[in-house]
Amino acid sequence: MVNIAILGFGTVGSGVAEVMEENRGRIALAAGEEISVKTIVDVRDFPDSPFRDRLTRDFSAVERDPDISVVVETIGGVGVAYDFTKRSILAGKSVVTSNKELVAVHGLELLALAKEKNVNYLFEASVGGGIPIIRPITQCLAANEIDEIYGILNGTTNYILTRMIGEGCPFDDVLRDAQRLGYAEADPSADVKGYDAARKICILADLCFGKNVDPAAISVEGIGGIDLTDVERAGELGYRIKLLGRAYRLPDGRVTAYVAPHLIEKDKLIAGVKGVMNGIVVHGNALGECMFYGAGAGKRPTASAVAADVIDAVKHRERRRMVGWEPSEPGFLADVRDMAVRWYVRFEGAADESSLEPVKTLAHGGERVFVTGRLTARELDAALGDAKVLARFRIL
Amino acid sequence: MVNIAILGFGTVGSGVAEVMEENRGRIALAAGEEISVKTIVDVRDFPDSPFRDRLTRDFSAVERDPDISVVVETIGGVGVAYDFTKRSILAGKSVVTSNKELVAVHGLELLALAKEKNVNYLFEASVGGGIPIIRPITQCLAANEIDEIYGILNGTTNYILTRMIGEGCPFDDVLRDAQRLGYAEADPSADVKGYDAARKICILADLCFGKNVDPAAISVEGIGGIDLTDVERAGELGYRIKLLGRAYRLPDGRVTAYVAPHLIEKDKLIAGVKGVMNGIVVHGNALGECMFYGAGAGKRPTASAVAADVIDAVKHRERRRMVGWEPSEPGFLADVRDMAVRWYVRFEGAADESSLEPVKTLAHGGERVFVTGRLTARELDAALGDAKVLARFRIL
Repeated sequence: MVNIAILGFGTVGSGVAEVMEENRGRIALAAGEEISVKTIVDVRDFPDSPFRDRLTRDFSAVERDPDISVVVETIGGVGVAYDFTKRSILAGKSVVTSNKELVAVHGLELLALAKEKNVNYLFEASVGGGIPIIRPITQCLAANEIDEIYGILNGTTNYILTRMIGEGCPFDDVLRDAQRLGYAEADPSADVKGYDAARKICILADLCFGKNVDPAAISVEGIGGIDLTDVERAGELGYRIKLLGRAYRLPDGRVTAYVAPHLIEKDKLIAGVKGVMNGIVVHGNALGECMFYGAGAGKRPTASAVAADVIDAVKHRERRRMVGWEPSEPGFLADVRDMAVRWYVRFEGAADESSLEPVKTLAHGGERVFVTGRLTARELDAALGDAKVLARFRIL
Repeated sequence: MVNIAILGFGTVGSGVAEVMEENRGRIALAAGEEISVKTIVDVRDFPDSPFRDRLTRDFSAVERDPDISVVVETIGGVGVAYDFTKRSILAGKSVVTSNKELVAVHGLELLALAKEKNVNYLFEASVGGGIPIIRPITQCLAANEIDEIYGILNGTTNYILTRMIGEGCPFDDVLRDAQRLGYAEADPSADVKGYDAARKICILADLCFGKNVDPAAISVEGIGGIDLTDVERAGELGYRIKLLGRAYRLPDGRVTAYVAPHLIEKDKLIAGVKGVMNGIVVHGNALGECMFYGAGAGKRPTASAVAADVIDAVKHRERRRMVGWEPSEPGFLADVRDMAVRWYVRFEGAADESSLEPVKTLAHGGERVFVTGRLTARELDAALGDAKVLARFRIL
């Protein structure tokens, strides 16, 4: 019998407690022994919870308890969560987390500390909610050099875009609806501005390319700049607009990572990922392309991923999982403006068409829309010259 | 340094040798030590292969070599492959395979033997080619009770159906094309009649539901009965026809597994899986629905999955992976005719409409097409009475 603790009894933490209880038999079978939630730490009271007798406000009760070998951190953020994670690892306990911000910002340090203390620090739930993605990358694709990974990593923005595309509703109206339905926070900026997706693509890039990618160092563009005109024009041209986090190895060996809206051909499978769902595409040099799809957030899906990591931590108490990456180094991370892509550009006025090499064009009144050949952002700017740019998006 | 052997130097076996060589550094990093292909067993000569100096016709050279700790079996079939697998395990070696027939038919026995000898028997490549699916089910979904798994498990039939749907070509013409392009065998019956998909869904059912499902015991229907009229009618009703392998837990707790063409709503993501690609959907009680997509066959994708298992076998030499299932027992496997589903039925004559509860209907000349409410096959037969049934397919 293995005892675990849960730090933070919010949506995900309470989901973990419920799933561990409900699927106790199945989990024991998979882990080879029973796993029991012994202690839950939260500053709030939960007098009506069936777990109320296991709740405490005192983290040090967990830290000092030699019976607890795995700690689940579902507090979120980089404050208390960081402190408790460090102290748990230092106390010789494995830590499992759904905290993407903490992994993206301090993962390198915490993984090094876990290695030093010979414990596990696992974070399957930090990207794609319940979708298996971290383990497939580190294990199933272990024999591949990975060239590229991208995905619809944020359910809130995908919900908003899906309704803009499907119903022609403007951004502000859909956002209000999403807030009312609980799909968007009261302050939606972490989602809408792309920061949530940025943390996730950095974690994926860390794992795929082996060196640390700092979320503060990458280009992040949200969905605020997408208006219905572009949704419509994209549709006419055979594309859907989706917010992607993307990490890519350039021909010169450097890696670039960024978050930005992209036009995706309607026929591509990932263009069919709708609503709050997530989809992640990985390209390896042996496997080719594969995609992982499912609920990118939510109480039980996220708990499913956390519980799988708990089982793994229990099974790998003696021989820890080798998961980690190296610090970044000069010349590793490339500016996304050095990456040549095809562009959708909507503009008024004259542009250097010979440089833009348009493969498709539309004209609406004084506006023109070009789908260009492959250009870096710098080349695009030069070719657009004095034209008044109304919108420009990368094409996947 | 770990030495491995490859049995069978055909498409997959030679792919494994190539990928292990090409991605040697990455593989060493993942495994924690270098892995080298020491011996390759095949009855044929390969005078032009860069691996020719490692080739032998004599399996006992591998069997007796204490330096070889992992054996890759890519021979196929249940003859020599079964014999060599058994002897390798008895010699204390882990075995990794892409051989779906062997795993589906003798997996229970071989896994028990591997457990007894404390070695690994791993088979990620046996289902979905390079797509990570076995490991995600056994590890990432370990905290879920799985209710259902289904998928497009055979690339040849999906290629044929995709062209029938997209171009309106009749079955026989597309099959000839597929044979010319190398997507279908000269004798295509294992694919076209659904036997290949049956082996794969049985392996998935074994893992998801924990008891052995014998491919010979399940209902298997191929794509030979689909004609262009049904492809068209399905399209009019908003569906695409796909061949699915499916395993499902009935409300009474029994499990049914089968292979049959299904109508799938065009909007569902899996309906967009085209050509030779595969897609597999799993439904767990915590995670909900997730999908895995990629190349279900082919030299390098399959080699990617085999190589990942080799790495895993190397990492788990001391503490073997717990993978396996129990023998079947009376009352475990249900007849698919006991499973209530919605049906597409095309018929001439009179039927008992009140029992069919049609939710959509079409009439073309004397023919009628009904989309029914949920009925078992027995109930459908009764309601159809003396009507002349031209085609009937389940709806996903």
